[in-house]
Order: sequence, then structure tokens, then C-alpha cells
Amino acid sequence: MKRAIVLLSGGLDSATTLYLARKQGFDCFCLIFDYGQRQRNEINAAKKIARLAQCHFHIIRIALPHKGSSLLDRKMRIPRHLAAMLRNHNLIPTTYVPARNIIFLSLALFYAETIKAGAIFIGAHIEDYSGYPDCRPEFYRAFEKVISKGTKSGVEGRRISIETPLIRKKKSEIIRKAINLGVPLGLTWSCYEGGKVPCGRCDSCYYRKKGFKEAGIKDPSIRS
Amino acid sequence: MKRAIVLLSGGLDSATTLYLARKQGFDCFCLIFDYGQRQRNEINAAKKIARLAQCHFHIIRIALPHKGSSLLDRKMRIPRHLAAMLRNHNLIPTTYVPARNIIFLSLALFYAETIKAGAIFIGAHIEDYSGYPDCRPEFYRAFEKVISKGTKSGVEGRRISIETPLIRKKKSEIIRKAINLGVPLGLTWSCYEGGKVPCGRCDSCYYRKKGFKEAGIKDPSIRS
Repeated sequence: MKRAIVLLSGGLDSATTLYLARKQGFDCFCLIFDYGQRQRNEINAAKKIARLAQCHFHIIRIALPHKGSSLLDRKMRIPRHLAAMLRNHNLIPTTYVPARNIIFLSLALFYAETIKAGAIFIGAHIEDYSGYPDCRPEFYRAFEKVISKGTKSGVEGRRISIETPLIRKKKSEIIRKAINLGVPLGLTWSCYEGGKVPCGRCDSCYYRKKGFKEAGIKDPSIRS
Repeated sequence: MKRAIVLLSGGLDSATTLYLARKQGFDCFCLIFDYGQRQRNEINAAKKIARLAQCHFHIIRIALPHKGSSLLDRKMRIPRHLAAMLRNHNLIPTTYVPARNIIFLSLALFYAETIKAGAIFIGAHIEDYSGYPDCRPEFYRAFEKVISKGTKSGVEGRRISIETPLIRKKKSEIIRKAINLGVPLGLTWSCYEGGKVPCGRCDSCYYRKKGFKEAGIKDPSIRS
């Protein structure tokens, strides 16, 4: 059975990506990252999702040398969507974590080479996202070049691909796909804040709400 | 003062690179990686070198999800140079750690973006090395493309370069340069084994010995 590494954040995009990879016949090895994010709910969500999907999972803890993002630094304010839209038009928001997907992919690549996985799945997408440069197709193509030039697998001709099945999907399309695949959306966590319930106001909550509304589906994670 | 991140392993190449970066006028921020390497001497060496050079340093601990290298797995044998030459001609030795420099550079990139450093120095070189794909110039150029496509700095036009000042140098040339720069070579640690004194037989000891011999200099780390 062919193997894949799946980056699992606990959000609905990565959970859907896991179910897509499974449907494609991959034996999935999930990586969950504990990189000092101020909200810990997503780590617990990711663990529950991996267990329910009966996939291998591994949590990698990384003590980053600096707090360079409002997702890491509790002293910084997480922007609310509308404010961010008005004030920071065309700017990358403070929730950007420098090089995050590069760090995640590099560790996934270590894992892929050691267990001989041929693919790394990541649930990034360019629509309805917060303007992060490491969510764009050109970044993933550049990273594949790094794999081919800088790894044993690459120089020996064993391809490890970066799979971004959601890259051009809208949030509402991802949600419809998730429903079809039986993804446990009620377990997923998107909010950037660390409260007991989603704040409903951060970028991530905004896009989630918008996506469910456009899909005409009730968000099962929101208790009414 | 312009800032640089310097990857400091505790070996003589990275120590020389640090002194070269300082000479170029950089305020150096050293990153030392504790990634589960079986020998711990190099971490202590790196700390001593950074302190002596009066540079900032930070140790990043990473719990990798697998032991995929004889540098990590105590059950594996570290190859001796001659055996490796005979048996594994043109093969990458078991001391290869998958994606190691990709992981290190990605974390250095996080640090560079947060503290606004414009360069990342790494002491890799293609001559007298063990055949690692992530020590070749084409890998570093590919990684720079990842920086330009996948980071805030990149898309906003602030270049972060990967500096490999030793990339085409022979070990003996590096040693001569180190002597000129006043690098504390006696503090550096190269051996792959974790003993109290260098084993003298692993690839790394072999190239170090060969380098000092060719440079006509006595290795100050070896007590006679």
C-alpha cells in the first residue's frame, strides 16, 4: 500500500485533505505540529481526527527561537476580519508565521524519506485564505525542486510529490467535498483564538462561516 | 549593523563560517540544532564557540518522528571511511540525515524573517564531503527560490540570501582560512561517534585528519 505524509492542523482543510488522501488509496501518516501556537485546541482536534480516521500520527514539538506572529505571541492582537480588510488591504496579516509551511514540509520530507512515502499532502488553498505566500502553487513547485536537488530520494530519482488537492478550491467547495467524504467536521477547529468556543471574528472564523453559508450547510462544530 | 543567521554545528566548517560572517560585518545570530544526534559533543562545542565569539545563540530542539540515519540511531553502525569507500562507491552513506539542511534552513528562515536578517550562513562544501545532496550549490539555489516564492520577505522584495562561503573549498583551504581568522579550532568537534575523544575512523574524522595533513597544520583538538 503506497504511503503518504499528511500535514494535519486540526482545521477543516487538512481534515478533508486526509480523507481525500485515504480515498486515493494512501496509507496515511499524519504529522501534527506543536510549534508554540497560542491556541492549543487545534492540536487536540488533529489528534481526534487522526484517531477517528485510524491513521498513524505523530506530534512534532518545535521550540521556535522567537515569537514572530500574532498566532504565537499572546501579547499581540489577532486581527478581526473586517478590520484587517479595511486597514491592511493587500498586506499580509500578523497571523503569518514566517516560513511555517516550509518548516512543516521539511519535517514531512524527513519523515517521507525515512518511511519511503511518495507523497506529502497539505491542505493549503489560495482562495478564501489570509494572503500567506506559503499557500501559493508557485511556492509548492519551488519546494518540489528543493526535494529533487537536496534529498537522497531526489538525486536517486524517487519522486516525493507535494500534493495540494484543495489549492484552487473555495471554502464552500471544500466543505461540500468534506461532507461527501464523511469528514468529521464537528471535530475540526479553525479559530485563531484559544477560547472554549470559536471567537467568530478572526480571519479563520470569518472564512469558515462564509464557507458554510455559501455551501448552505450548518457548521456542526457550532452549538446553537 | 546588518544581521545574519549562522548555522553552527560545532564542527570546524561552521565555526569558520561564523568567523567569516563576522569579518564581513554581520551581527551574527547562531542557531544550534539538537535534533537527537547520538553524539552530543558537537552541541557543547557549538555553544562554546558562540560564547567565545560573543555572538547571540539559540538552541532549537526538534524531536524527529523517526531514526532514519546512523547519526541518530545508536543501533546502526557508523561507517568507517575506507569501508564506506570500498563498499558504497557512489552511494550516499548511512550518516545522511534526510532533509537535514532543508529543516535547518527552514528554521533559520523563520528566525531571519522575525529578526530581519538578510542572510543565512551555512558551512556546507562539496569537496571532501560525504556525498550529501543537501551540500550542493544547486540545492541552495533551489532553496533561495523557495524563499522568494514562499515567504513574506520574498514576495515583498526583501532578499534573504543563503551564503555558502566554503562551498567550493577543500578542507585544507578551510583550515588555513580558519587559522587566519583566529577560529578556535581546538574547540571544534567533527567526529560522528560520541566518545570522549574523536574516533579517528569515521568519515568526518577521516576528512578532518586529511585536511590538517594537507594544510601542514597540527590539529589542536588532538592531544598527543
